[in-house]
Amino acid sequence: MKHNVLIIGAGGVGHVVAHKCAQNNELLGDIHIASRTLGKCHAIIESVHDKGSLQQPGQLQAHALDAMDVEATSALIRATRSDIVINVGAPFVNMSVLEACIQTGAAYLDTAIHEDPAKVCETPPWYANYEWKRRQACREAGVTAVLGVGFDPGVVNAYARYAVDHCFDRVDSIDIVDINAGSHGRYFATNFDPETNFREFTSTVWSWENNAWQANAMFERRKEWDMPVTGKTTCYLTGHDELHSMSQNLGVPDIRFWMSFGEHYINVFSVLKNLGLLSEQPVRTARGQTVVPLEVVKAVLPDPASLAPDYTGQTFIGDVVRGRKGGKPEEVLIYNVCDHAACFDEVGSQAISYTAGVPAVAAALLIADGTWDRGTMANVEDLDPRPFIALMNRMGLATRIRDAKGDRLLDPVTQVARKERVAVRANAQ
Amino acid sequence: MKHNVLIIGAGGVGHVVAHKCAQNNELLGDIHIASRTLGKCHAIIESVHDKGSLQQPGQLQAHALDAMDVEATSALIRATRSDIVINVGAPFVNMSVLEACIQTGAAYLDTAIHEDPAKVCETPPWYANYEWKRRQACREAGVTAVLGVGFDPGVVNAYARYAVDHCFDRVDSIDIVDINAGSHGRYFATNFDPETNFREFTSTVWSWENNAWQANAMFERRKEWDMPVTGKTTCYLTGHDELHSMSQNLGVPDIRFWMSFGEHYINVFSVLKNLGLLSEQPVRTARGQTVVPLEVVKAVLPDPASLAPDYTGQTFIGDVVRGRKGGKPEEVLIYNVCDHAACFDEVGSQAISYTAGVPAVAAALLIADGTWDRGTMANVEDLDPRPFIALMNRMGLATRIRDAKGDRLLDPVTQVARKERVAVRANAQ
Repeated sequence: MKHNVLIIGAGGVGHVVAHKCAQNNELLGDIHIASRTLGKCHAIIESVHDKGSLQQPGQLQAHALDAMDVEATSALIRATRSDIVINVGAPFVNMSVLEACIQTGAAYLDTAIHEDPAKVCETPPWYANYEWKRRQACREAGVTAVLGVGFDPGVVNAYARYAVDHCFDRVDSIDIVDINAGSHGRYFATNFDPETNFREFTSTVWSWENNAWQANAMFERRKEWDMPVTGKTTCYLTGHDELHSMSQNLGVPDIRFWMSFGEHYINVFSVLKNLGLLSEQPVRTARGQTVVPLEVVKAVLPDPASLAPDYTGQTFIGDVVRGRKGGKPEEVLIYNVCDHAACFDEVGSQAISYTAGVPAVAAALLIADGTWDRGTMANVEDLDPRPFIALMNRMGLATRIRDAKGDRLLDPVTQVARKERVAVRANAQ
Repeated sequence: MKHNVLIIGAGGVGHVVAHKCAQNNELLGDIHIASRTLGKCHAIIESVHDKGSLQQPGQLQAHALDAMDVEATSALIRATRSDIVINVGAPFVNMSVLEACIQTGAAYLDTAIHEDPAKVCETPPWYANYEWKRRQACREAGVTAVLGVGFDPGVVNAYARYAVDHCFDRVDSIDIVDINAGSHGRYFATNFDPETNFREFTSTVWSWENNAWQANAMFERRKEWDMPVTGKTTCYLTGHDELHSMSQNLGVPDIRFWMSFGEHYINVFSVLKNLGLLSEQPVRTARGQTVVPLEVVKAVLPDPASLAPDYTGQTFIGDVVRGRKGGKPEEVLIYNVCDHAACFDEVGSQAISYTAGVPAVAAALLIADGTWDRGTMANVEDLDPRPFIALMNRMGLATRIRDAKGDRLLDPVTQVARKERVAVRANAQ
């Protein structure tokens, strides 16, 4: 049975999602891409054809859509007979797209938390402000919604669940470490939508420590992490989506997120922030125009997609998990390393988009084959991580584990239920 | 005889000009202030009354005016019976205000060169692109126009003329040094209109060296100048208005302009410039708005006028003149030091606005008493500098000279013609 997919958003992640859906269209069926800007959808479709990404001959169609419009989104889901909606649009459209899925019965996936454009960094846990308010509605409608299923949030949640369930008697802390050791060769650029990128760092840094929310300022706490491939890298405590579900779902007292930033990035960011240019609040110019400064900064920065051809180096994303096993302290690192140039060779994207887009398609495959199709709303750590990790190992994102026994591929396939193997088989080209 | 004055522009310099006109209204008569924003004119008038700046009871009136509109400007000159127009508006309105003066016969003064908002840093000499094209029209109409009569351009041109005429047999080089050793206590601010300020530094730095235009990049050439009061300060070769007339009028082979910049200023400026946020060319935001980035930067920065209450420290502006006298090499420094807090005490402004505004009013007084009323267009170095320097000594801007004989007040009053003494007398309170 086919499961047509509607991809909402034609940015860098949408590009990867389209390629990966195409590589699996035997199971997924028709692929529809919708964006406010039709031309961006067409460019992605052209890229999918150029790279020969389609697993078998199939439909790829572009649609103009304002995803804030629930009726228009519902109508498009129906018209395209889509069973699965992969929302990789701006974080402002989550709630309207989710509503359209509830109305139509389509499964819903996204890779980032909902945001109100006029607000930054609301009261934690953030999921409770928006998505979780529709949990009951999903259950009643029997709609599968998997929230935040990119890499982080997403895969790092699955790594945490795997560690809690399979590596420890008791987990004391999880430190998620996100390092981009790549180089794009530009004066300054963000690796995904600048607006979304900066909004992450312009307000309170929320962490989960001693079973409570801890507030810090951005760049207030730093730590050097020595990781495989990327080596010693200075990272900063950062607020991030996954803390807002993992803190509520895993029963682990300390969960923190660390991101690498170079001095140049911090300098540019600090100048822009201190001047007020990262504000989402409109200002009035001397000529009487009302303008949101952050939108202007976005307009002058390079299009993240334009960075891919020259990007070199690797990304590292992983969970450092500490706790006790058999009465002894234990530390386990579960991680992925992704190469920018290899991603570009395969699908024409850099590794930041690639690592965010592949997991969403893996999740779509697990919904299509029934493994994750629970008919309700879930964060990734609510779901069995093993079929997800195993499937991604075969989709270009290999998971490794480093513990007292050494550093090796983590492939939980042998422990996985029958349904997952269907997906893996479907994905084998 | 009274000489009513129309001040165009109600920014920081307009504020100082209004106070100084009021302090001399026995000679100048009625004072009119015009701006696009009527409220800014009213605020200045209120400040003049609060400080008791009026020399004698007199008229102070506010007018709303778009100074790009020649007919409206002519009509206002006629309605207010203004004999002298002091244009301290944006540099974009010079040519329309000058045209209105030519039509009405009023004398014209400004403190900065004309600019086209869509262009930055045109072919030198800049005056030839705009103002000097109307020189013949001024002569035919018998209209007195004194261009660039702030401090720099303006007073530094007079210092150069004084040195050439009275201190040397032959001048080889003039280095104009502009140091702001003050502190406003903000993260970042410009001392006058940010748009005008940044436009000075975003393109080619033109200097006059070996009797030819020399092009450099901003912050490419630096030099430490050790000056009275401010001490050793790192300055950078900068393009500036006065080079574009002095190079043509003085017959001096090397004329350069140096401005002090702190490392923090350079960092912020460089970030903004490298990102494209100082561009005068519109960009289009993702939401479809067309915006000029520089106007948004201006909108988020502090209003320069708001800095004055907390400003401490001094400005230094002077000419380092080198040449030969009596067969020997000679170096003369002619300069002014101005204290931010003292300016605020007197007129409620910081020293940058004060040093720009006082010379324009001194020039208006010299036109009113006939000394500089030549019925044609002139740059400041075309005029006798002695009455100008002498008058400013009595208006709050004292000129000092440092040469082989020491460092002392430069007061050329004894050499000055009768007409200038009238102005000085009129100004004595």
